[in-house]
Amino acid sequence: MTVRELGEYPLVARLCQRLQQAFGIDKRVLVGLGDDAAVVDIGGTRLVVTIDTQLENAHFRRRWMPPYDLGWKSVAISLSDIAAMGGKSLAVVLGLGLTGDEPVGFVDDFYNGAIALCQATNTLLLGGDTVKSPLGVMVSSAAIGLLDSEPWQRSGAQVGDALVVTGFPGEAAAGFWWLELGHQEAEGASFAAQCITRFRRPTPRVNLVPLLRAFNVRAAIDISDGLAIDAWRLAVASQVQVQIELARLPLSESLQAVARALHKDPLTLALTGGEDYELLLAVPAEEAERLCQALTEQGTPAHRIGEVTASHPNGEVLGRYPDGTLKPLEGGFQHF
Amino acid sequence: MTVRELGEYPLVARLCQRLQQAFGIDKRVLVGLGDDAAVVDIGGTRLVVTIDTQLENAHFRRRWMPPYDLGWKSVAISLSDIAAMGGKSLAVVLGLGLTGDEPVGFVDDFYNGAIALCQATNTLLLGGDTVKSPLGVMVSSAAIGLLDSEPWQRSGAQVGDALVVTGFPGEAAAGFWWLELGHQEAEGASFAAQCITRFRRPTPRVNLVPLLRAFNVRAAIDISDGLAIDAWRLAVASQVQVQIELARLPLSESLQAVARALHKDPLTLALTGGEDYELLLAVPAEEAERLCQALTEQGTPAHRIGEVTASHPNGEVLGRYPDGTLKPLEGGFQHF
Repeated sequence: MTVRELGEYPLVARLCQRLQQAFGIDKRVLVGLGDDAAVVDIGGTRLVVTIDTQLENAHFRRRWMPPYDLGWKSVAISLSDIAAMGGKSLAVVLGLGLTGDEPVGFVDDFYNGAIALCQATNTLLLGGDTVKSPLGVMVSSAAIGLLDSEPWQRSGAQVGDALVVTGFPGEAAAGFWWLELGHQEAEGASFAAQCITRFRRPTPRVNLVPLLRAFNVRAAIDISDGLAIDAWRLAVASQVQVQIELARLPLSESLQAVARALHKDPLTLALTGGEDYELLLAVPAEEAERLCQALTEQGTPAHRIGEVTASHPNGEVLGRYPDGTLKPLEGGFQHF
Repeated sequence: MTVRELGEYPLVARLCQRLQQAFGIDKRVLVGLGDDAAVVDIGGTRLVVTIDTQLENAHFRRRWMPPYDLGWKSVAISLSDIAAMGGKSLAVVLGLGLTGDEPVGFVDDFYNGAIALCQATNTLLLGGDTVKSPLGVMVSSAAIGLLDSEPWQRSGAQVGDALVVTGFPGEAAAGFWWLELGHQEAEGASFAAQCITRFRRPTPRVNLVPLLRAFNVRAAIDISDGLAIDAWRLAVASQVQVQIELARLPLSESLQAVARALHKDPLTLALTGGEDYELLLAVPAEEAERLCQALTEQGTPAHRIGEVTASHPNGEVLGRYPDGTLKPLEGGFQHF
């Protein structure tokens, strides 16, 4: 059987099990593979560690991904994992693969983008490795964060919790399709620009962690592969059924305008688009409204979009339609 | 100007300068880009951090790199950097890119190799990211180590120090050429097997750090691109001239046998072959013999191969030939 035939989730589940066997008994490992990032304890100091890779023509195209944005995003996607664990970001190292044909300015711009986001999040960019990658540009970013209290895990959601999402899921996917379908950035005025920015320069929510720590965050995940699938991951880990009220999904004007122009359904983009790098949080229902307000006041839109409705041994995500119908939500990005 | 036209060293120097400007003033950064790994201080705990990337057909071929060895080596090359800083290895995360056509057993074997080396070095394998890499297998490995005393840097060598090298530089390169030129593993009996093992399953010298800490290691570097070039990096960082006594280079029987079979010069392989992942150390001359003896007794061959002969503003590496002639040593692997 090939990796493609097995599929991504069984593959990851297999690895989790293997690593759990090998290292799970080690008391230093507080959270192992299978969450947004691993957590390791070194004599009372808790480190959050994650790694992500982006490859040309699999994750981005040179045609529509300027090097500055590639550097920014490489840092962003790893810091987003740190945020999802409730960590404070400490440092990033980057492994950059180049064909050698890139202008030197490409590398300068790449690092300028990476440095800009590191500086905006008080993260040290400790450098890294530059290698020859004959078939295209690639980047791996490893991030280290610090935890000064308990990690947020996917597994902590409880029946009765509300689900809160930051930002506007779907905008990034709208920006992706705008670029991928060959539209120009200048076309479509500001609504396209907004979505393109969300896609190319996502804001990892690591700066929100101190504010979020004032609330009782029970579970968290960052939305990298799509709201529906990442909600499902949270539901599986917490062994709960969650319901997402589709009428409450915040479909921004920019998302709607781009979706209209591209003849795509904005709700589908919001549910399955991926690459949002927003946070999906489970909090006690009574805190949800205050949390959304605090985040919004701080400059980050946040909405209550659903709730944890029941225990469920395998995890389940239902969408509640405006007419009251409940249907399982499916779809989202799978690597294989 | 392209990256290839600029060349690897000016490119890295440019990045060092840029990151130094951006983060060098941060007191948490004890060692920044430009050494084997970065060192960051978090409230008294010192972390050593590094990342490395290997790509199919740039760094390895599927034809001669079994997945077990690829997993092992991915961990090894990062732990070697931790060792070169004098760090104790803590944890590794891996980013694995797959085309999807690999058998599932490939992934199992990859992780078995990675786990085996982690367990042999008391390193936690915290998992990582699996992504689709349409054009070939790739691996990034990020390692974190801990320092309980001062980091060893490339810059600490002093005039009068002796240079000591672990293992048998050149064996890895001999193993590489044996495989790359299409020879079979079974051919050439044990001398080829020894070199192939050094190439495919290098031993990062992280387990030697406690022993080495009993000596006054003034500077260290791991030999990844070739003894001559890595000695030059140490000389540049320390602003010294070093002389390598070519007659003292340990050319193992396996290296000599493979070199003979391949019509290659064993001395050239030892000086410029690369991928040894051995340590080159500068220690006070009076400690060198005792150090070599202690390492050898512990099971790791080590030899005194040269000395730091003078201050030199730009750094210089000279080879001393048996007839007393001194000539600059050149060559080694450059990525671009």
